[in-house]
Amino acid sequence: MADINRRSFLSAGAGAAFLCTIGDTQVDLAQPGAAKQADAIAARVERPPLARASQELPRPVPQPGGSYREYWIQARSAGWNIVPTGRDDWHGRKITGKTSFRAYLYQEMTEGFAAPKGGLNMPGPTLYGEVGDVIVCHFRNADTKLNQAVTMHPHGVRYNPEYDGAYMGKYTRAGGFIAPGEEFTYFWECVPGSAGAWPYHDHGPNHALNTFRGLFGAIVISQKGAKVPDVSYTLMFHQLQPPITGLSRSFQCINGRSYAGNTPILKATAGQDVAIHVFGMDDNFHDFHMHGHRWKDTGGANTDTTTVGPSETITARFTEDNPGRWLYHCHVFSHQDAGMAGWYDVSGP
Amino acid sequence: MADINRRSFLSAGAGAAFLCTIGDTQVDLAQPGAAKQADAIAARVERPPLARASQELPRPVPQPGGSYREYWIQARSAGWNIVPTGRDDWHGRKITGKTSFRAYLYQEMTEGFAAPKGGLNMPGPTLYGEVGDVIVCHFRNADTKLNQAVTMHPHGVRYNPEYDGAYMGKYTRAGGFIAPGEEFTYFWECVPGSAGAWPYHDHGPNHALNTFRGLFGAIVISQKGAKVPDVSYTLMFHQLQPPITGLSRSFQCINGRSYAGNTPILKATAGQDVAIHVFGMDDNFHDFHMHGHRWKDTGGANTDTTTVGPSETITARFTEDNPGRWLYHCHVFSHQDAGMAGWYDVSGP
Amino acid sequence: MADINRRSFLSAGAGAAFLCTIGDTQVDLAQPGAAKQADAIAARVERPPLARASQELPRPVPQPGGSYREYWIQARSAGWNIVPTGRDDWHGRKITGKTSFRAYLYQEMTEGFAAPKGGLNMPGPTLYGEVGDVIVCHFRNADTKLNQAVTMHPHGVRYNPEYDGAYMGKYTRAGGFIAPGEEFTYFWECVPGSAGAWPYHDHGPNHALNTFRGLFGAIVISQKGAKVPDVSYTLMFHQLQPPITGLSRSFQCINGRSYAGNTPILKATAGQDVAIHVFGMDDNFHDFHMHGHRWKDTGGANTDTTTVGPSETITARFTEDNPGRWLYHCHVFSHQDAGMAGWYDVSGP
Repeated sequence: MADINRRSFLSAGAGAAFLCTIGDTQVDLAQPGAAKQADAIAARVERPPLARASQELPRPVPQPGGSYREYWIQARSAGWNIVPTGRDDWHGRKITGKTSFRAYLYQEMTEGFAAPKGGLNMPGPTLYGEVGDVIVCHFRNADTKLNQAVTMHPHGVRYNPEYDGAYMGKYTRAGGFIAPGEEFTYFWECVPGSAGAWPYHDHGPNHALNTFRGLFGAIVISQKGAKVPDVSYTLMFHQLQPPITGLSRSFQCINGRSYAGNTPILKATAGQDVAIHVFGMDDNFHDFHMHGHRWKDTGGANTDTTTVGPSETITARFTEDNPGRWLYHCHVFSHQDAGMAGWYDVSGP
Repeated sequence: MADINRRSFLSAGAGAAFLCTIGDTQVDLAQPGAAKQADAIAARVERPPLARASQELPRPVPQPGGSYREYWIQARSAGWNIVPTGRDDWHGRKITGKTSFRAYLYQEMTEGFAAPKGGLNMPGPTLYGEVGDVIVCHFRNADTKLNQAVTMHPHGVRYNPEYDGAYMGKYTRAGGFIAPGEEFTYFWECVPGSAGAWPYHDHGPNHALNTFRGLFGAIVISQKGAKVPDVSYTLMFHQLQPPITGLSRSFQCINGRSYAGNTPILKATAGQDVAIHVFGMDDNFHDFHMHGHRWKDTGGANTDTTTVGPSETITARFTEDNPGRWLYHCHVFSHQDAGMAGWYDVSGP
Repeated sequence: MADINRRSFLSAGAGAAFLCTIGDTQVDLAQPGAAKQADAIAARVERPPLARASQELPRPVPQPGGSYREYWIQARSAGWNIVPTGRDDWHGRKITGKTSFRAYLYQEMTEGFAAPKGGLNMPGPTLYGEVGDVIVCHFRNADTKLNQAVTMHPHGVRYNPEYDGAYMGKYTRAGGFIAPGEEFTYFWECVPGSAGAWPYHDHGPNHALNTFRGLFGAIVISQKGAKVPDVSYTLMFHQLQPPITGLSRSFQCINGRSYAGNTPILKATAGQDVAIHVFGMDDNFHDFHMHGHRWKDTGGANTDTTTVGPSETITARFTEDNPGRWLYHCHVFSHQDAGMAGWYDVSGP
């Protein structure tokens, strides 16, 4: 009892024990073997009756002047190395031990899922649109290992309930349960309130575990005719933990990588209009800091360090004026020192 | 020593060990039996010398055009079921085990505390005002079980120190120590800076424990003559933990309830002006997400997921345009999956 | 294995195990003796080849109408009492046990480091500037105990990579490694985007540990000719934990002190223009609340409780209109009750 109480309180601020609800079962991911158990449960979740892709579904049309933006995206699990260089280039430190695990990733494909288009990355492809457009996202669950339904749930865009991409038990609609081997086409409308940068992620029956494994990406929508930044980056801040990875330690990651030289190396030239979109993609709160630069928060105040919560986005936009090699990092020191940091290289004009 | 160190660090990010200061004693709520101990200590806290309700107190008057808004509210403990349906309607899952505990609640009464007005709920009644009004809150400590002073401490409004409702040891003023059986009338001024949605909560000698038990509610103040939303909800995000409840597990709650079907079922119709006020009411940081909708942050940027800290409020206000059944939830996955989620049902125009 | 998993998850939300990277070694500060170990490693970190202060460095000049603002600041460790009064004046409670430790502090000196100017405090001196100015900060590592390089890394201002004050391994520039006994002069430009309040802190090879020990301070920059507040305070919210202090418990601090009467006693008079700058200076997220007052967030919305993340700043600015003794505190209850609270005394006009 003493132990239960203490544990509950220790974990309180951290958001309770790491409970995942999968179908009709709740699993504490903090227990050993829990990920395997969660996968087994997820594999048994039955297709909800309303979630049949074969039915007639609405087909939103673009606004006058807008267009369809078509993407072909598949989900599949794959080996992923968190520290491919084996080094932390900031501290000149060798990173020892196993750093690879089976991730779950969104992959962009050519039309009709004919062939991969670009690499297999964490995050998945960034989807672009302008206000008035409709993003048409052909999605395929191409995984052959984990044997469970997954989805794409977008933030920011408008969508009919069929295209929510959320498993909701017996209320689940067509796009909320895409079983292995199945395809589904999402229609997502870029309305005026959609302008901005947003995450998308799995929201199927095993959403917490699969999102933490890497099933996430970004959507960037601009106002019609708005100036697009010269340079734009999307940075997902997230933790890869032992129960997710089976590895012996936690990694604080940006885009699935830990430690400078592995995390994205941002590049720009003096004079360029730069936008850096930062997303929280785990259960922690993060704090984006960039050395040598500042930007405006949404209220117009000057800042160089901004809190970003789970599935939130903050955008640092500025005109580049400061050549050099700069650190960017989460300003939570224990995240920063566990890998959540990278380089920003600015060349002269 | 090793253990102390480790524990301190584990709990660091979570806000330190769960220390409560009650009168002249500090209690670590993470220890078993601590709530009972805290109550016993609170029962022994003596009335501070300046906290005599009998004295002559200032009586603020409304601004020209404003009026008094009178409420009669009592505090009392009562049995509370966190999962009254025994089910999670999202995942179609039965919730087993004991889910009831002794909560501490604010209850609205008719004039003169004659009779209950409406039910006994968590949160307590929402208090309304317009800029220029004075909220007159007649408060009674009607509890007969916990034997300790409680108060009402409001956010957002202006008040004389007598009406702060905060226990401050020997500096405590009249409204900061309302012993069992006592009454006190608070006067709270709705000044221009008060427009918005705010929490109120206990700030007596045992404020942390009692607030976590449910002694909280909302105040909604509008600008004089401002359009009131067609539909308005107040959602308190908070955790009910074993040391508070004596139950064997933690619940992530909205308005004292866990899991869809128990948490508030929000309803609106297409075309309506909707305001959802979300409050952090524990020691965690939360992140409100609503499917299928977006709103503006206070700086005018588009968002659909917003961080909300302890006793902070964020408001999602939008014109409803998207019929269907939608999920709303905290986007911290481990909160979401432990009950901090609910339904929003939108009917067509 | 079970234990590793559980620990990882418990600490997950709290920002992972408390890993610090010092030079080429990673240390888990949650382990006993880790601070001593970190210091020993830091003492062995070699000067990076590019970090030679003797080289020719750029010397930015003020904008027309601007000027140089010259400061002489040294870093040194010193004994520091977290609870000098031995009491919590809020709850009238005696604070027992050892409350002193070896802190690491920035100290303002007279020209040429001739003599101390004012006391030795946590935080260090506040640096002031106006847009167009250049802050010239002569820095000396004057510590004789901890035997390691430290720096000053500023937020908000613009600086050449030489003046970043960040250790970056082999990429470290001149200002990023100031060894014991050495001096270095930083030039920091107050550009238009610098207007606001910002932290500065150590960013040397052992930055997490040394910042947590107290190596931090504030920079306040105003727009050229802008009205300066009548009263201005800088409040650093941070935790002093056993692995940092060697003490047996954690303290939730404001400016290095815990509990009302030890934390800053703010004072103002009705009618004054008051600015309170609140900084997060640890790995936690905090939430500043002031009783009896409200202010505008950066977007113009009314608030009286505002989240502040690590190395972020929020400013509460208001015209004082409410005489009395008021509490200010972090609204995370377990922080508030562990010392993160203080008095604000307002006298009549």
